[in-house]
Amino acid sequence: MLTVDEARTRILADLKPTPPETVALAEAWGRVLAAPVIARLTQPPSDVSAMDGYALRAVDGTLGAALTVIGSAPAGHPFAGRVGPGESVRIFTGSVIPDGADGVLIQEDAERDGDRVTVREAVQPGRHIRRTGQDFAAGEAVIAAPRRLGARDIGLAAAGNHPWLAVHRRPRVAILATGDEIALPGEPIPPGGIISSNAHALAALVRAGGGEPCVLPIAGDTVEAVGTVADAVAGMEMLVTTGGASVGDHDLIIEGLKRRGLELDFWKIAMRPGKPLVFGRLGAVPCLGVPGNPVSAIVCAVLFLLPALARLSGLPAAPPPVAQGIAGATLPANDARADHLRARLRIDDAGQLVATPFPVQDSAMLKRLAHADALILRAPHAPALPPGAPIAMIRLDTLGI
Amino acid sequence: MLTVDEARTRILADLKPTPPETVALAEAWGRVLAAPVIARLTQPPSDVSAMDGYALRAVDGTLGAALTVIGSAPAGHPFAGRVGPGESVRIFTGSVIPDGADGVLIQEDAERDGDRVTVREAVQPGRHIRRTGQDFAAGEAVIAAPRRLGARDIGLAAAGNHPWLAVHRRPRVAILATGDEIALPGEPIPPGGIISSNAHALAALVRAGGGEPCVLPIAGDTVEAVGTVADAVAGMEMLVTTGGASVGDHDLIIEGLKRRGLELDFWKIAMRPGKPLVFGRLGAVPCLGVPGNPVSAIVCAVLFLLPALARLSGLPAAPPPVAQGIAGATLPANDARADHLRARLRIDDAGQLVATPFPVQDSAMLKRLAHADALILRAPHAPALPPGAPIAMIRLDTLGI
Repeated sequence: MLTVDEARTRILADLKPTPPETVALAEAWGRVLAAPVIARLTQPPSDVSAMDGYALRAVDGTLGAALTVIGSAPAGHPFAGRVGPGESVRIFTGSVIPDGADGVLIQEDAERDGDRVTVREAVQPGRHIRRTGQDFAAGEAVIAAPRRLGARDIGLAAAGNHPWLAVHRRPRVAILATGDEIALPGEPIPPGGIISSNAHALAALVRAGGGEPCVLPIAGDTVEAVGTVADAVAGMEMLVTTGGASVGDHDLIIEGLKRRGLELDFWKIAMRPGKPLVFGRLGAVPCLGVPGNPVSAIVCAVLFLLPALARLSGLPAAPPPVAQGIAGATLPANDARADHLRARLRIDDAGQLVATPFPVQDSAMLKRLAHADALILRAPHAPALPPGAPIAMIRLDTLGI
Repeated sequence: MLTVDEARTRILADLKPTPPETVALAEAWGRVLAAPVIARLTQPPSDVSAMDGYALRAVDGTLGAALTVIGSAPAGHPFAGRVGPGESVRIFTGSVIPDGADGVLIQEDAERDGDRVTVREAVQPGRHIRRTGQDFAAGEAVIAAPRRLGARDIGLAAAGNHPWLAVHRRPRVAILATGDEIALPGEPIPPGGIISSNAHALAALVRAGGGEPCVLPIAGDTVEAVGTVADAVAGMEMLVTTGGASVGDHDLIIEGLKRRGLELDFWKIAMRPGKPLVFGRLGAVPCLGVPGNPVSAIVCAVLFLLPALARLSGLPAAPPPVAQGIAGATLPANDARADHLRARLRIDDAGQLVATPFPVQDSAMLKRLAHADALILRAPHAPALPPGAPIAMIRLDTLGI
């Protein structure tokens, strides 16, 4: 049996980032930057005031001095002249410091009377002045690639004068559910049948991972149906199948896809829930087969599909983010398979994250998985742990999953 | 001066969740559920097998017994007859347990030869059988509202046979930037001008918070321009303005909006960066005015706009999520204003989150804010802290911000 890490490493090694596309800045939030953002201007573009007040020569700004106000320079309306001895210009936060001035008398320390202003607190040269390029300089790489762009990055790219950005294309992931027993929600349910939940959960998970899901029509349990549906995946970045990947007589997906050229590995992974996983290629399209059991399908998707989406989106190959916390109950010793205990989270009085597993961990209980906040990671052969022991977990509540 | 908590409480008290709308299940990911999801069927709908194997009467499943295989029942194809003494039916994971059977001989413990199967490990009654309703029962509220729907919720709603869900409408937030000195990225920059970055950062933050941004055209520094633009916000859930909210001569936004009926409070908040905040109503539309300074604008948006978006989206009124970590450097004693130190995060060998503030915290340095992972929260008058001391923070890296 493979370990979870071995399987993930093999999958990720086989994936390449999507090519870039150009998108409008306003559409770039959440996308993965494909090329560094190079500032096209210097910020601030000249020395500007950090406060509302008066620009003057600092040597004139002695306590009690009175200066003539020779003009005003709101932000965006620089003063055209020069500040000479005994002169000042009314300025505001963001105003360009006029030529000749090297000090700012802030409003709170100024007493204005007509065209005269009196200094009530001595001015320090350079104080309250933001220097040219204090934030960044033209030509500087202000955002490195790859990076998933947050709101602050969008603001920074705007400030660097970029109306367009190069981002990786969203990976398109086809999702194929199979089985004569499954029906779409709201459609007639065959005798002994159940509703298809995996395809929709996986599609939402693809969205959460920044991809574009394409849910294929449900394929019935015939080799031909699978093969026909498989034709629809050319040009996709990945095919995810669910169901049919057991050791029983009904491995029809695999048979069907093999007839269409699928090269695959059938892996048994030392994990719970999960275990059987299929990975291979259908022509140029990587294929990941997760179990049909809904809890196993989602846990496998968190462990393997989310990192695959990140990699396809241009981010480095990496496991899902792991958080630290403490056990909220006794955890029994683990067997040879890595376990992923569905757990609720709470924050204790000390501010620590306490993860308490549900007492029953049946892999068919989708409701319980949906109500979980985290998966506690239990390594193979991990010893029993008392309540309060440190544990590692994958948080589901912050992943959109 | 108001505290951050007082200001947030006042803002949130004034906001009401948007009404519900019906969306297709496939479009419901990330939306806030407006009514509980009541399961429309029982899951599993009948007793089903948890394993591949043979259904039989448990009393017949003694070690070494040989039974006749009278049929096969793949998932979705229930066996029509009844299992009698000495008989068995081939079944698979998810297959309905046929009438008469109360035990499952798993495949690994079965020896098949033609239409006979021999028991190699005694069968326990009820073992490997998932009982009707083990996951949930028809009529049960499987997802409570309000809740932001993750991928697992989508799967659970599908399993409960819901092709449509009632969710709160995305709050529409108009964003108004003002100032003669600002230009859109890629457009000609006026003398002494800068690029408008706040509107785009705020729009992305609105998306991150589940809202729909509407960036209004930049209003010049005239009262009339503001008033004209303000006409465009009728029917919006919120107006966010940026810039113009200083104590200087250029409070044109406020003047402009007042002429259009704005009722507002001008608040000074005991916080850094930030301080001036405007909150009020323009007719039925709540208005939030954040500072023009890009760092202050984004920090104020994290503290006030994100919780407002959550509340408008139907979620409870609450502050942004706070995480615990430890200080990566000495933190000086704080003054009377709550501080929000821009910090990088790393995970130390013990798995703890270490937040190290940038040495310079100038509120005009957007690049530094964009490179930060978290805001370390420093309460008013907080004492100095040594490296390694516990601290609270708002993580920006996981909020899409």
